[in-house]
Amino acid sequence: MALIVQKFGGTSVGSIERIEQVADKVKKHREAGDDLVIVLSAMSGETNRLIELAKQVSDQLVPRELDVIVSTGEQVTIALLAMALIKRGVPAVSYTGNQVRILTDSAHNKARILQIDDQKIRADLQAGKVVVVAGFQGVDEHGNITTLGRGGSDTTGVALAAALRADECQIYTDVDGVYTTDPRVVPLARRLEKITFEEMLEMASLGSKVLQIRSVEFAGKYNVPLRVLHSFKEGPGTLITIDEEESMEQPIISGIAFNRDEAKLTIRGVPDTPGVAFKILGPISAANIEVDMIVQNVSHDNTTDFTFTVHHNEYEKALSVLESTAREMGAREVIGDTKIAKVSIVGVGMRSHAGVASRMFEALAKESINIQMISTSEIKVSVVIEEKYLELAVRALHTAFELDAPARQSE
Amino acid sequence: MALIVQKFGGTSVGSIERIEQVADKVKKHREAGDDLVIVLSAMSGETNRLIELAKQVSDQLVPRELDVIVSTGEQVTIALLAMALIKRGVPAVSYTGNQVRILTDSAHNKARILQIDDQKIRADLQAGKVVVVAGFQGVDEHGNITTLGRGGSDTTGVALAAALRADECQIYTDVDGVYTTDPRVVPLARRLEKITFEEMLEMASLGSKVLQIRSVEFAGKYNVPLRVLHSFKEGPGTLITIDEEESMEQPIISGIAFNRDEAKLTIRGVPDTPGVAFKILGPISAANIEVDMIVQNVSHDNTTDFTFTVHHNEYEKALSVLESTAREMGAREVIGDTKIAKVSIVGVGMRSHAGVASRMFEALAKESINIQMISTSEIKVSVVIEEKYLELAVRALHTAFELDAPARQSE
Repeated sequence: MALIVQKFGGTSVGSIERIEQVADKVKKHREAGDDLVIVLSAMSGETNRLIELAKQVSDQLVPRELDVIVSTGEQVTIALLAMALIKRGVPAVSYTGNQVRILTDSAHNKARILQIDDQKIRADLQAGKVVVVAGFQGVDEHGNITTLGRGGSDTTGVALAAALRADECQIYTDVDGVYTTDPRVVPLARRLEKITFEEMLEMASLGSKVLQIRSVEFAGKYNVPLRVLHSFKEGPGTLITIDEEESMEQPIISGIAFNRDEAKLTIRGVPDTPGVAFKILGPISAANIEVDMIVQNVSHDNTTDFTFTVHHNEYEKALSVLESTAREMGAREVIGDTKIAKVSIVGVGMRSHAGVASRMFEALAKESINIQMISTSEIKVSVVIEEKYLELAVRALHTAFELDAPARQSE
Repeated sequence: MALIVQKFGGTSVGSIERIEQVADKVKKHREAGDDLVIVLSAMSGETNRLIELAKQVSDQLVPRELDVIVSTGEQVTIALLAMALIKRGVPAVSYTGNQVRILTDSAHNKARILQIDDQKIRADLQAGKVVVVAGFQGVDEHGNITTLGRGGSDTTGVALAAALRADECQIYTDVDGVYTTDPRVVPLARRLEKITFEEMLEMASLGSKVLQIRSVEFAGKYNVPLRVLHSFKEGPGTLITIDEEESMEQPIISGIAFNRDEAKLTIRGVPDTPGVAFKILGPISAANIEVDMIVQNVSHDNTTDFTFTVHHNEYEKALSVLESTAREMGAREVIGDTKIAKVSIVGVGMRSHAGVASRMFEALAKESINIQMISTSEIKVSVVIEEKYLELAVRALHTAFELDAPARQSE
C-alpha cells in the first residue's frame, strides 16, 4: 500500500462535472488500496475573477488582502471534492493551507513554503480518510494567509509529498506526459517513460510548460518521485526521478526544447577592457531585465562584440538601455533581432557521450540552417537560429538523435 | 473617543459600488475620532450561490465541508473593504473568524460563539487601524471552520462588541430604525428613539425582522448598547438598551407586532384527564413541529377543547399528527384554520400600568373584530384574529395606544 499525493489543476476541477470525474478517479485509486492526499487548485478562471474583483476596488492591490481574497478559490474546490467523495462512500476531509498548517514566509502573493505540519493528515490517513488539501496557499507565522504565486499548487503537492515521505507525487494535467518535443511541431514526438529532474528543469525552462519549475526543483531537492499524467485519460504518464543509473540504456538525448519568446541584442565594437561584460549587463540587470544566453566574441582590433538574449516583452526596454550604454562606452553600434528562435537538445546522456554537440551542428548544417549563438551546459546544448527555420531544425534534430516514434500503432 | 463595532449586512456590501460607499462612511466615522471594528456579511446572493454549488455536488450537504465553502463569502468582502479603506488612506486590516480567533462549538452551520480572542484586534486599534472582521464564521477547538447560521453576522458584531467592551454596536440595515409597527400597514408608524432588549425580542420574534433574535439576546445578556441604522441614509436610528428607568416617561406600549405566518389547530371534546396537554403536544413536539400559542378552554361535560398555533409550513404535518392523537384519545373532532393572524402589543410600560389588555380588547371590539385566542406575558399581549382584519386591528391599536406620529413634517 503506497502513499500517493495527487494534484489536480484548475481545468481538472473547472466545473461540477469535472469535480465529479475527479471524485470517481480518486475513489478508484482509493479502492485499489493506496493512501491518498489530494491537492487542488481553484476552478479555472476563479482566481482571475477574484483578482478582477479586487482590481475594481483598487488599482493598488494590497498583497496581504489580495491573498485573503484569492485563497478562497481553492477553499471552495477542496470542500466540493470532499463532499463528492463522501457522497461516493469514501471518507474524506478538506484542509486549507492554514488548517494543515503549511507554514510559509510572509512574502504575500509569492510566498515560499518553510514547513508543513503532517500531524493532522497522518491521523486522517490512519483513520482511512482521503485528505483534500488546498494548493497554492499557506499561512505565515503571524497567522496571515499567504499564496505561493501562480502555479503554486504543483509546489504544494511536491512539498506535501516530501513532508509525508510519499511514494509518489502525481501531477494531473491536460497532457498525458512529457514528450521528446512538442508533438504539434514533430508528429513523431514520443512520450517519455522517464526523465530526470535535471532534464525536466531544462525542458521546462526551455518552453515545455508542463510543470512549474519551482515544483520540479523542490521534487529534485527532496527526491520526491514526480509523475505527470492526464487528468481524464488512462496511461502511465511520465515519471520524473533522480534515477540516473538507467540513463545509460536510454538515448543520449531525452528531448528537444525550443522557444520563440526571445530577442537578441548585440553591441558591436566595444573597447575590450576588463569588466566590459559587467559594464554592459549591469545597467540591463539594474533595469530588472532578465538575460538568458550571453555570448562574447573573440576581440579583434582591441574591440569586441557582445550578444545576449532577453524576453520579447523586454526587448524595447533593453534596446534603449543598451543604446545609452553604447554611447557611454564609445561602442560602434547596437543591433537587435526579434526574429530568432532558440533550440536545445537536453539529456543526461551527454555526460557520458562525447561529440553530442557536433552531431547537433552537423544535423543543422545538413539543412543549411545557420547558427547565430551557441550556449552549452552539462546536459544541454542550445543554439539560436533564424525563427523561420525553427520547425525544420526541431524535426531534423529529433530524427538525428533517434527520438522519432516507430510507425504509429492504433492508439 | 469611543470604540464602536459596526456591522454591515449583505445588501450593504452587495456590489463594488456599495463596498466603496461603506468605505466612505467608515472613513468619515474614523476621521471623527472613533476606534472602529467593522463586521461584514458576504455580498448579497453569494452565500446562496455557494450553497447551490455545493448542492450540485451532493444532495446530502456535509455540514463541515459546507462551512468551508460558505465561509469564503465573508472572506472576500472583508479583504475588499480593507483594500478600499487603504486606498482612501485609512490603515486597515482584515481578519477571518479563524484569524481573530472567534472560538465556537463544533455545531457546523449553526455554531455558537464560546470565546473571542481580542488581542490582535486591540493591538491593531492601538496602532490606529480599522479592523475588518468576517461575520457569521468562527473556528472550533480542532481548527475546523464553523458558521453561525443565517444572520449570524449580527451575532458576531454583538459578540465582538461584548468582548471588546465597545461603547456601542451599530447594525447597519436597509431600514432607518425600529418602528412602532410596519409602516406599510400603518403610514403613521413612528421610528422609536429607544427600545429595551426585552421589547426588541418580542418585536423581533413577532415579525419585525430587523435584527436576528440571537444577537439581541446576546446584546441583552452582555449589556451591549445596540443601535439599528440605515446603511446609506443619515440618522440616529434606534438604540436598544437595558435602560428601563426612562421607560416611565415613554408610552406604555412601544409597538404593535403582527404575523401572518401561523395556522391554528383545535382538538375538541377531549376527555379532560390529567396530562391531556402532554398527550396532545407530545406527538407534535416529537414530530419536530414548533408550537407558538397554546390555549386550553375551561372544560364542560368532562371534556375540554385545546387549541394551539404552528407555522404555516408545518400545518399539514401537525394536522395529521393531531388527527391520529384524536383517534387514540377518543376526542370529538379536529379542526384547523390557516386564515388567521396574530397581533401583539409590546411594551415594558405594561409592568407599571394596569388595564393594558382590556384597553386592547376594547379597541378591537370597537372595530367589531372577534378575538379567537389570547396569550399574555409580562410585556406583551397577543391575540389571534381572522386574517382579513389584520390591517384594521393594527391601525386601531396603533391609534388606541397613542403611537401615531404627529402630522408629518417634510423629511
